[in-house]
Amino acid sequence: MRRVYIVLYEDFTALDVFGPVEVLGNIDDYEIHYISLQGGVIKNKQGIKIITEKFSDAKTPEVLLIPGGFGSRIVIENEYFIASLKELISNTKFLLCVCTGSALAAKTGLLDEKSATSNKTAFEWVKSYGTNICWKRQARWVRDGNIYTSAGVSAGTDMALGFIKDQFGKNIAEKICRKMEYHWNSNAENDIF
Amino acid sequence: MRRVYIVLYEDFTALDVFGPVEVLGNIDDYEIHYISLQGGVIKNKQGIKIITEKFSDAKTPEVLLIPGGFGSRIVIENEYFIASLKELISNTKFLLCVCTGSALAAKTGLLDEKSATSNKTAFEWVKSYGTNICWKRQARWVRDGNIYTSAGVSAGTDMALGFIKDQFGKNIAEKICRKMEYHWNSNAENDIF
Repeated sequence: MRRVYIVLYEDFTALDVFGPVEVLGNIDDYEIHYISLQGGVIKNKQGIKIITEKFSDAKTPEVLLIPGGFGSRIVIENEYFIASLKELISNTKFLLCVCTGSALAAKTGLLDEKSATSNKTAFEWVKSYGTNICWKRQARWVRDGNIYTSAGVSAGTDMALGFIKDQFGKNIAEKICRKMEYHWNSNAENDIF
Repeated sequence: MRRVYIVLYEDFTALDVFGPVEVLGNIDDYEIHYISLQGGVIKNKQGIKIITEKFSDAKTPEVLLIPGGFGSRIVIENEYFIASLKELISNTKFLLCVCTGSALAAKTGLLDEKSATSNKTAFEWVKSYGTNICWKRQARWVRDGNIYTSAGVSAGTDMALGFIKDQFGKNIAEKICRKMEYHWNSNAENDIF
């Protein structure tokens, strides 16, 4: 089994996580794990209480997903969180960031000289954490090698399908869309927001 | 605060839950609770372990959301589950069912003589649990009074926005879409699947 690690922290945004999870969960040999810095129960403002493993439990991630959420504004100032996240990103084969999750990845320095995007309402705030990144405001999602970043919240689902298309082919991506009865915004450059 | 109760059971589908949660979580006086028959930790095949209250803890629901998932095929044969769900549905102001969640509601008898829909791949199976229901195959979602049912998985998000539009107005629904950067399929009758 290849491991997918979902990075959680207090006050993450639900759909940033579970849109991509719904997509990635269709790949039979992906095993999805939820991790937080210290492990244990992670809560958010939508009443979710989810049980997580620790960052240090993560072994050779195939995919690392970093969601956004208001809580990103807290953990981004936590040097130990960012240093630990940097180690995770260094070890993953693919990185997927949704919404303000891009700011967390940017803060590690590992997006430097890469192209990336983030959500619209917090765009200037996100940019401030990576002054050496080629930020693209008008994008549903951006791929730069093995790094994918998406616009806000629901764009993460479209990006996850784009990732599936790139890695497993268009047929698999479209099969997942039918199963989810999902209208995929499949053009990464078509951003109406 | 008005209470939104999300019905969970083993092997629920993540996006059936968290798409609508992402929408409903924008209403300031909605307080979202996750409940299962016995309470405790509920797991699914996407690796989620979520902490729930008990069905019997639910007090005067404003909204009751019933998601679908493969686990619905197990709990639908559990008479105590269905009897308890019937009591919850009897007490809620609004009922929202996503995907095969409609089958669970149908089994209680409380959808009899109502219009409803469900997902495409399991449609015949769902229909078999409510022979006295006006099932509509071609619909993104269906509203019948205070009962909303949606097609598969991602249709739940569109239905939740339709519910918000009906109860709080189009401006609020569209504001939520912008915040989520979500392409809303806002026509309940436009179903391409």
